[in-house]
Amino acid sequence: MVVIGIDPGLALMGFGVIESDGYRFKVLDYGVIDTPAHTNDGDRLLQIWNELNAMFQKYKPDAVSIEELFFNKNVKTAISVAQARGVALLAVKAAGIPLYEYTPLQAKQAVVGYGRAEKMQIQLMVKTILNLKEIPKPDDAADALAIAITHVNNAGMIRANGR
Amino acid sequence: MVVIGIDPGLALMGFGVIESDGYRFKVLDYGVIDTPAHTNDGDRLLQIWNELNAMFQKYKPDAVSIEELFFNKNVKTAISVAQARGVALLAVKAAGIPLYEYTPLQAKQAVVGYGRAEKMQIQLMVKTILNLKEIPKPDDAADALAIAITHVNNAGMIRANGR
Repeated sequence: MVVIGIDPGLALMGFGVIESDGYRFKVLDYGVIDTPAHTNDGDRLLQIWNELNAMFQKYKPDAVSIEELFFNKNVKTAISVAQARGVALLAVKAAGIPLYEYTPLQAKQAVVGYGRAEKMQIQLMVKTILNLKEIPKPDDAADALAIAITHVNNAGMIRANGR
Repeated sequence: MVVIGIDPGLALMGFGVIESDGYRFKVLDYGVIDTPAHTNDGDRLLQIWNELNAMFQKYKPDAVSIEELFFNKNVKTAISVAQARGVALLAVKAAGIPLYEYTPLQAKQAVVGYGRAEKMQIQLMVKTILNLKEIPKPDDAADALAIAITHVNNAGMIRANGR
């Protein structure tokens, strides 16, 4: 199955497109949707919407996996990221693609095996699992790939439990 | 001109549609987009998107006026409202409608004349300005009408300054 992972953000929205049978993983694409800071929020959200729609059209994913937001400090940043995340959720639903949400804790458990893993450990595991030569850059793209892997691993467990 | 005011929210998104030449005001419609609590965020955002698109199609507004978010307490609520607000901003931009954002302070100044007005004072002024028999209900709809009036008054000032 093809899974797109999304790490939500307004300035940089990370994405990672992978293909997997639950055992082997292949990276199809990864990167960030980069919206210019000098434009207004509405135009930046429209850019995110257009690029996500093009991505869904191109890769026809079986699932999209997106990180849940947890904030306890900067509410202004939280609002900005949440507005972008709302557009991403909408884009997935409007395209009729199954949507899955995972917490950072679930992602760490799925990728590294325990929930208190450091960022560098996650990135190294993403590199290893996906058989990449280098750690994917920027961080937002690596996080998005981690969220995509998280869904494959959880979907695998769902299948296994369903036997 | 026709102006739609929006008071963003996930469970209840207030809207108010008014027509004005800058002096007289006429209410065309107001109410809330009411999304069921038992459905997931993605489906609720899709419903908001669909209903806003239908509203823009029906009323062909010259401008949409939307309240800015200020939160300092409940970040979880802030995230939920911001996701819905992101979808509203996108809907306006995707429809090619001019978008205006006003703070609650600006709305109070425009509707009541000073920035520390109480909610009831605002609602009474909305009723008076729009020549309604009763205060519009629920609060989200009254707030949306206030934001629409705010834009008309500011647009009037822009015109006046431009002379």
